[in-house]
Amino acid sequence: MLRATEHLRTLHIERPTLLLDAERVRANIARMAQKVSEAGVRFRPHFKTHQSAALGEWFHEVGVRAITVSSLDMARYFASHGWSDITVAFPFNVREVDAANALAQRVRLHLLVDSHAAAAHLESGAQHDIDVWIKVDVGGRRAGIPWTDLDGLVSLAQRLRDHARLRFAGLLTHAGHSYDASSVEEIRAIHGATLVRMFQLRARLADVNVPAEVSIGDTPCCSVVTDFAGVDEVRPGNFVFYDLTQAQLGACGAEDIAVCVACPVVGKHAERREIVLYGGAVHLSKDTLQVDGKTIFGYLARWNATTWERAETRAPLVSLSQEHGLVHLDAELFDTLEVGDLVGVVPVHSCLTTDLYAEYRGLDGSRFARRRSNDPAADL
Amino acid sequence: MLRATEHLRTLHIERPTLLLDAERVRANIARMAQKVSEAGVRFRPHFKTHQSAALGEWFHEVGVRAITVSSLDMARYFASHGWSDITVAFPFNVREVDAANALAQRVRLHLLVDSHAAAAHLESGAQHDIDVWIKVDVGGRRAGIPWTDLDGLVSLAQRLRDHARLRFAGLLTHAGHSYDASSVEEIRAIHGATLVRMFQLRARLADVNVPAEVSIGDTPCCSVVTDFAGVDEVRPGNFVFYDLTQAQLGACGAEDIAVCVACPVVGKHAERREIVLYGGAVHLSKDTLQVDGKTIFGYLARWNATTWERAETRAPLVSLSQEHGLVHLDAELFDTLEVGDLVGVVPVHSCLTTDLYAEYRGLDGSRFARRRSNDPAADL
Repeated sequence: MLRATEHLRTLHIERPTLLLDAERVRANIARMAQKVSEAGVRFRPHFKTHQSAALGEWFHEVGVRAITVSSLDMARYFASHGWSDITVAFPFNVREVDAANALAQRVRLHLLVDSHAAAAHLESGAQHDIDVWIKVDVGGRRAGIPWTDLDGLVSLAQRLRDHARLRFAGLLTHAGHSYDASSVEEIRAIHGATLVRMFQLRARLADVNVPAEVSIGDTPCCSVVTDFAGVDEVRPGNFVFYDLTQAQLGACGAEDIAVCVACPVVGKHAERREIVLYGGAVHLSKDTLQVDGKTIFGYLARWNATTWERAETRAPLVSLSQEHGLVHLDAELFDTLEVGDLVGVVPVHSCLTTDLYAEYRGLDGSRFARRRSNDPAADL
Repeated sequence: MLRATEHLRTLHIERPTLLLDAERVRANIARMAQKVSEAGVRFRPHFKTHQSAALGEWFHEVGVRAITVSSLDMARYFASHGWSDITVAFPFNVREVDAANALAQRVRLHLLVDSHAAAAHLESGAQHDIDVWIKVDVGGRRAGIPWTDLDGLVSLAQRLRDHARLRFAGLLTHAGHSYDASSVEEIRAIHGATLVRMFQLRARLADVNVPAEVSIGDTPCCSVVTDFAGVDEVRPGNFVFYDLTQAQLGACGAEDIAVCVACPVVGKHAERREIVLYGGAVHLSKDTLQVDGKTIFGYLARWNATTWERAETRAPLVSLSQEHGLVHLDAELFDTLEVGDLVGVVPVHSCLTTDLYAEYRGLDGSRFARRRSNDPAADL
C-alpha cells in the first residue's frame, strides 16, 4: 500500500523527512565490498552520496580505509571523523591551495589534475606531500584529458613525476557516460572500453618510465561487472543508496533503493486524480527521469509490513515546485490516500536528494547526522 | 567580460559562493512596494525566495508589516525575527496542528485550506485564533478548489465562517500558470482572468452572507500589471531577486537579476570549447530553461566595473552534475577564461538556488544569513 502512516507512527513525522533503510544500506555496502575484495582490488568508495560520518563507519567495518570525496570541504569533514587517506575526485581547484596544504598535513591527500595550468599552481603551492592523479576522459566529456591525447598525457605525467613534493600516483577516470546507456550490455561495453583505454595509457606511460596506477569507478559499471583485472582501485559511490536512475539502468533492483522521503499528503483533487504532497524541489531535488516519453520526479513507495518495498510506477510525481509535489494516480490507488496520510517518495537521484537534509532517519527512529554542501564552517 | 576575478578580489572567494547585489534587491523591493502602494492594496510579500531576516528588514523599511511564507517552519523563523502577521501560503498540513497552535499564540497566523478534510482537522485542533483562507485554483492546477466549483467553495466557506476559533478571511490564489505564458500579453490575460474569477467567487459568497477578501500574487503577473482594483492584498515573492525564468517571461529586465553564484573555473577543454566549473547541482539547483529548443542550467554573467551586468547568452551552462558545471563558449569568449578564474552564474530559478546556501555575500563582502530548508531546529 501507499500509506506509510501506520509504519511510521512511532516516528511522529510532521514534515518531509529523509528515511533510511539501514539494512539495505549495509547490504549494498557488503555486496560491493565483497565483489571488489574478490577481485583483489583496492576499494576507495566515494562518500559524496551519503556524506555521513555515521554511515562511513559501516564502510570501516567491512575493511574500507581509503575514501573518495568531491571537494576539499568534504575531505575536511571526513578527516575530522578519522579518515586518513582521501582522494578529492574533482579537478584541483587552484583557489584552494591553502586548504589543500592544511589538509595534506593531516591526511594522505590525493588530488586530480587535467591541465598544465592546474599542475603549475599545485607545483608552486604545495608545501606538503600530495599524491597527484591525472584525470582521464574516457568518453564522459566532462573533466579530464581526452584518452586520445597521448602526447598531452605523457607531458603532464612526466612533469608531475619530476616534482619533489608531488607524488604522481596514476590515472583516474569516471566513465560517466555509463549513465546514458540504454542497456546493461551497453554498460558492460563501456566498462570494457574504459579498461582497454586506461591500460593503453598506462602502457604508454610505462614506455617513458612513468609508473602509474589505474583508478576507475562509476556505480553503473561497478554494479554490473565483476571483471576488474588490472585495475588498482575502484571508487563507486551512489551504490550505497541507489535510486530510480540506477534501477532504470539495470544497475540495481527496485528493492535495493535504500532512501526515500516521507511526505505528508496535503491535498486531494478528484477531478484530475492527483494528490498534493508537502514535498517539493527543496525536499527532493529537481532531477528527472524519462519514462515512456514522460518526465517524472520520483514515484510513491509501496510499503510492506516493515519497510517500503519498491517504487509504484502507477504513482509518479509529475510536477514539483518549491514545496509542492503533484502525484498522478490511477483510480484504484487514488482512493487509498487521504489528506493527512504520509507517503514515501523514492528519489530519482539519491545524491542530490540526500544533500538537502542534515540527517537521515532510520525506520526505527534512529538518527544519522550528515554534512550539507555549502556550509564549510561546519566541516572543520 | 566573463572573468569576475578582479571585481571580487577583496572577497577571497575559493568555492561556489552566493552573491547578492544589494542595490538591485532594494530597487526591486522599492519598485514593487510603490506599485502596490499606489494601487491602495495591502502588500504581503512572499519571503520564501530570500528566507533571510536581514533582507526582511529591507521590506520593513518600506512599510511592509505582513508577510507570506510557505511552511510553518519558515513562519517560525520569521516570527523569531519580529514578524507578527504571517500567512502560510500552502495547503494546511494537518500533521502540524501543534506547530500551528504554538505559532498562533505568538503571531497573527493565516492558514490555507482547500478541502473539508483539512478544515475538519483545523476545526478540531485549533486552540487559538487563526485566520483561514480558502485556496482557489484559478488555472494553475496545483492546489486549491477549482474556481468552477462554486458549490464546493460555498459549503467550505460557510463551514469556516461558522466556527468559533477560526476566522474566515477570504479567497487566496496563486496563478502559477503565468509561468507557462509565452508573452507578456498572455501574462496580462491570465491576470485579467484571475481577477474576474476571484471577484465572481467573492460575489457568490456575498450572496450567502460570507464576506471575503481577495488575495493574489505571483511574480510574473504582479511585475507586468498595475491594475489591482478590487484586490485586497498581493503576495509576490520571487521579484526580490528575479532570475532567468522571469527574464525570459518578460517579468524583469536582464539587469534586475540580483543574485548570482561565483564559481571557480577548474578546467578548460579546447577541443569542445567548454570550461568546467566548480559549481554543480548542489550549488545551483537543477532547474532548467528551454532556449531555442535547448536545455540550459544558467548563463555566465558579464561583468562591468562594479557588478555583473547581465547574463551572457553566448555562455550557457549546458550540463550539471553534482559538483561540476559545463559551460559551452564561442571561440572569442573561450579565450578570455583560464583555470583559476572566477565567473558568475546567473540562475534559472533563484528560489531554488538560494535555498542551497546559509548566507548571501554582498559585493562589498558583507554577509547576510539565511535559513535553509529541512533544518527545523534552526527555526525556533
